[in-house]
Amino acid sequence: METVQFGFHLTLDLYGCPLQPLNHMPTVYDSLDKLPKKIGMTALIPPYVIHADANDAKDPGGYTGFLIIQESHISVHSFAKRGFVSIDVYSCKTFDVEKTKKHFVEIFQPTEVEEHFLNRGVNYPVKDLYE
Amino acid sequence: METVQFGFHLTLDLYGCPLQPLNHMPTVYDSLDKLPKKIGMTALIPPYVIHADANDAKDPGGYTGFLIIQESHISVHSFAKRGFVSIDVYSCKTFDVEKTKKHFVEIFQPTEVEEHFLNRGVNYPVKDLYE
Repeated sequence: METVQFGFHLTLDLYGCPLQPLNHMPTVYDSLDKLPKKIGMTALIPPYVIHADANDAKDPGGYTGFLIIQESHISVHSFAKRGFVSIDVYSCKTFDVEKTKKHFVEIFQPTEVEEHFLNRGVNYPVKDLYE
Repeated sequence: METVQFGFHLTLDLYGCPLQPLNHMPTVYDSLDKLPKKIGMTALIPPYVIHADANDAKDPGGYTGFLIIQESHISVHSFAKRGFVSIDVYSCKTFDVEKTKKHFVEIFQPTEVEEHFLNRGVNYPVKDLYE
């Protein structure tokens, strides 16, 4: 069976961000809303963002947002009081990782960035298995 | 500054699944809805599932579902005609990876499983940086 790689998954964990962008729902919303156009993706719904209350010693509360794109998804979890935000960009098309990083770094202004890149679905079938 | 690991991120890419569970919205919904209780997580909203139409040669269409949990998120992208589904379980608490895998394998019945596990936010601050 002929196969191809399905997906490209970038994770960004940003440290040392100022409080304000992390604690501001419109900023988290915009971080999702404005990325697809910059990297050639297409949103299927508007971003969905909710506030999560403080939960335990590890979780001081913040905003969780996600955006379903034609290519897969983008998600953002902010933990404002810790200056931390955890981001995923998962796409079935290759995309500009540096541009994506720059987008989030400009918005959240971290002092440090931790990243991973996963190649996913490396044996994805080129053709349909079913009618 | 005292730090701790923030998150635990499991990715599962399932191959060779039968058409029916992948092409059935209630099944995709249930795969998200029923997992949190099994692995000690708490949903913040009901699962959100949409149908994505066929897009290009790579994407024969399918369902994308997302569940925001107190601990981060769970996502499912099915590509029914290719027998493929791509899953993320991302949590700020450790969780039972084998139980999680069993949950999705029982539902989607793959012939092959590709997985990754990421340790994320490894320098997450133990204490708030801001009031």
